[in-house]
Amino acid sequence: MKLRVKILGINAGDKPIAVLHEDDAEDLGIRSLGRVLIRYGKKTSVAILNTTKKVVGRGEVGIFDEIVEDMELKEGARVDVIVSEFPNSISHIKAKLQGRRLTYDEILEIVRDTVDDKLNEIELTSFVTALNNFGLDLEESVSMTKAMVETGKKLELNNAYIVDKHSIGGVPGDKTSLLLVPIIAACGLTMPKTASRAITSAAGTADRAEVFMPVDLNIEKMKTVVKRAGGCIVWGGALDLAPADDIFIRIEYPISIDPLMIPSIMSKKKAVGAEYLVIDIPCGRGTKVKTIGDANLLAKDFIEMGKRLGIKTECAVTYGEQPIGYTIGPALEAREALEVIMRKRNVPDLIDKTKHIARMLLEIVGKDGEKLVAEALKSGRAEEKLRQIIFEQGGDAEVQPEDIEIGKYGIDIHADRKGYVLWMNNHRLAAIARAAGAPKDKEAGILLYKKIGDRAEKDEKLFTIYADKPRKLKRAQSVLAEEKAVGVGERREMLIHEVKEYPVHKKSFILER
Amino acid sequence: MKLRVKILGINAGDKPIAVLHEDDAEDLGIRSLGRVLIRYGKKTSVAILNTTKKVVGRGEVGIFDEIVEDMELKEGARVDVIVSEFPNSISHIKAKLQGRRLTYDEILEIVRDTVDDKLNEIELTSFVTALNNFGLDLEESVSMTKAMVETGKKLELNNAYIVDKHSIGGVPGDKTSLLLVPIIAACGLTMPKTASRAITSAAGTADRAEVFMPVDLNIEKMKTVVKRAGGCIVWGGALDLAPADDIFIRIEYPISIDPLMIPSIMSKKKAVGAEYLVIDIPCGRGTKVKTIGDANLLAKDFIEMGKRLGIKTECAVTYGEQPIGYTIGPALEAREALEVIMRKRNVPDLIDKTKHIARMLLEIVGKDGEKLVAEALKSGRAEEKLRQIIFEQGGDAEVQPEDIEIGKYGIDIHADRKGYVLWMNNHRLAAIARAAGAPKDKEAGILLYKKIGDRAEKDEKLFTIYADKPRKLKRAQSVLAEEKAVGVGERREMLIHEVKEYPVHKKSFILER
Repeated sequence: MKLRVKILGINAGDKPIAVLHEDDAEDLGIRSLGRVLIRYGKKTSVAILNTTKKVVGRGEVGIFDEIVEDMELKEGARVDVIVSEFPNSISHIKAKLQGRRLTYDEILEIVRDTVDDKLNEIELTSFVTALNNFGLDLEESVSMTKAMVETGKKLELNNAYIVDKHSIGGVPGDKTSLLLVPIIAACGLTMPKTASRAITSAAGTADRAEVFMPVDLNIEKMKTVVKRAGGCIVWGGALDLAPADDIFIRIEYPISIDPLMIPSIMSKKKAVGAEYLVIDIPCGRGTKVKTIGDANLLAKDFIEMGKRLGIKTECAVTYGEQPIGYTIGPALEAREALEVIMRKRNVPDLIDKTKHIARMLLEIVGKDGEKLVAEALKSGRAEEKLRQIIFEQGGDAEVQPEDIEIGKYGIDIHADRKGYVLWMNNHRLAAIARAAGAPKDKEAGILLYKKIGDRAEKDEKLFTIYADKPRKLKRAQSVLAEEKAVGVGERREMLIHEVKEYPVHKKSFILER
Repeated sequence: MKLRVKILGINAGDKPIAVLHEDDAEDLGIRSLGRVLIRYGKKTSVAILNTTKKVVGRGEVGIFDEIVEDMELKEGARVDVIVSEFPNSISHIKAKLQGRRLTYDEILEIVRDTVDDKLNEIELTSFVTALNNFGLDLEESVSMTKAMVETGKKLELNNAYIVDKHSIGGVPGDKTSLLLVPIIAACGLTMPKTASRAITSAAGTADRAEVFMPVDLNIEKMKTVVKRAGGCIVWGGALDLAPADDIFIRIEYPISIDPLMIPSIMSKKKAVGAEYLVIDIPCGRGTKVKTIGDANLLAKDFIEMGKRLGIKTECAVTYGEQPIGYTIGPALEAREALEVIMRKRNVPDLIDKTKHIARMLLEIVGKDGEKLVAEALKSGRAEEKLRQIIFEQGGDAEVQPEDIEIGKYGIDIHADRKGYVLWMNNHRLAAIARAAGAPKDKEAGILLYKKIGDRAEKDEKLFTIYADKPRKLKRAQSVLAEEKAVGVGERREMLIHEVKEYPVHKKSFILER
């Protein structure tokens, strides 16, 4: 069908979309979300079809930005529009919808078409949902991981001992990586750490590191930093490592499913060339993994997966029922990490967690981890290494804790009775810090004075909320008012809640890789 | 957040969509596909969020047509945009994603939010996919059906004996309903038949009936026709009966899943007030249900479901391995049906199928079906009734078979060897008729001269393809050239195909309700 191009000036997340009048679509014998092939001179492009009665008239084809640029189309150009075959990968998705196992070639085809934007939202969602419902067996998980690595960029280093660490997340205030990378690099191993920004939490490692230095490096710059300093902390989002993963996460987020957690994590590690890996699995109430039994099962899967991929993997199951250290929010956390690495402050849980994971990484490669870690910290070489990494990534290597600014506006929260801190609600604390502006406002967050088990008198300060703007501080207060974040008392109250008609099924933690 | 309205002039299938600049969205702490509440004076509206870096600047909110109309917004108006809670129904969808069974109230909430456009494509797809993967138990199917009826319009008649028939489809040329409705109405029962247009087939009952008369009646007009004539054949698409179904079908279509087949069919029947129902299940190679065993299982589900809904239901498992009668395509089929009801032509399989289903419908209500059907046909009362229905719906009641025009361009297809017709490929025949222009071009289609078991000499005519335009006839020929549609020979060839690397998993028939 010969049609006139109408440029619509819309960008749908780089999806190649063409819009036909309903009657023209019917004439072609094709429905919305089908595929059309557009031909202009020698250029062709396959688009996903939308139909309309209004925006585009008969004889016209409306084109979204993606295709306009690809094909260099001009308003009013005459193009040929014909029905296109559905991509092969859709057959594979349908097979999965019937519960069938997929081969590597089939998975690769799906992943490739995902990266090339050839699949529409319905197809992608049905695939991810089918993976969630039927599960992936080990073979499929390996295929998925390899396919995601295959369809992205890779970091190629010749260094020996390339190690990496990943936390499956869920605990606020976990600034372990800020300490771990310099310690490990100071011990002579290579740690090309990529990190994410917060999605639903108050800070991701990339947000924290950005307080010290730029983190949105490209892959060449990342390579230079790692070659010079032996380590880096960069944002993974712009590196194009396993880009399919980012698309799947976009689908998983609104429906809170996460069938690809292991392939997602492992593909990013494989793409940076990691040979040794420690996965941190925070565990307990208020985290993603509620019991030690579940954590062990997950650990087994990571380790087995690592074997298949040639990455020697161990897992650290860690205590996660309260924030790590005393700070939540990028700037507060960066400052705390700096104070700890400078040995200006003792933050027992943060130091303990960091030392254990560092020791494990060194032990996997056959070194005396405990001794090396203690020396790196005590000698000041870990601090020097952090400053070198900051310098190489373009930050201020001389930065001092007091240089790091914290939100101008603060409000103290006090104990409403005397007793011991019995519990802290990770989700509420994260929600309060977010309401105060974190992670977007780096200076916003929470400074804790008490942790679980600490004694508190009535009206004693429990924590301070910081924000950049009074409006956001007020917002944080109203989030705090909804539900308590920290429980103080002499004993646990026994009734958690009453169930009348339906069970409560609100689930807060999702997808923070 | 106070933002300036930017009217985008886009209609996304009536989805309420608002577009924010990425940085503003981040400031609000919300991602694409989250929900925002828009407030303008006293008006409020909940929108699904899209984010952009281009179309909408900081401080602006781009608004799609749906909301512009709802809230009577003007370009540049100042509105309040705040983060909105996710609809409750999303919790229920997540519960289904974990394999949980849903209660009626939960299903009703999902269906209501579906009809009210409160769920985005990812949420809807994950729901439909989870239904497909985990299945619905009987209780859930009943809930789904009732919820779909509840959220749509209903046809309220006071007639006794309201009966209906539905075919799950899959066989080309099935014009049974064109004969059945007048026969049943002539026998004194009431048959308010709603029908669909073809999605992937060459003609739906609505397409066939439209050759005689208008079929896009509204519900009041439909009621009038049924009151006067005792029956009707109208297009169901504009009646707003169980509208959720149409939305689910839009999701199911591109991924070829159909978990809601029974609720979909039964909700439409319940919405027109049917009390007695016969479901036709065409069975065999080239249909949706391949074996008699599967057909019986499906029949059992329909019958049980009918019980729960107060619709006395029986099923006719019918032979479906070749087209019904000798015609495929709206005009050809309408002409054949008219010739049969006028007793001008004998089409054994069409007449046999019609008589059986009519007899069953009459027997369910306790009448002597065989006798009544024979009399209605022989006396000419069935023909009179058809003409009355045509008249009441606004068509030409005097229509004669020769008035119905058939495509001007035709090409005969001949046997390439002598023998018996051994098989006919339903999918290929439908594809050829569609390529020739059916169902959009009413006059396009296929006229068969031979059916399975008939003797054919070499070069004897097997069928003629008709089209309105030479271009489309050519297209049909190229579809024919891809793969044979009719097999002639002395004996079946034993090798069907060879499987080398992967099994073939192309599946043609989907979703034709």
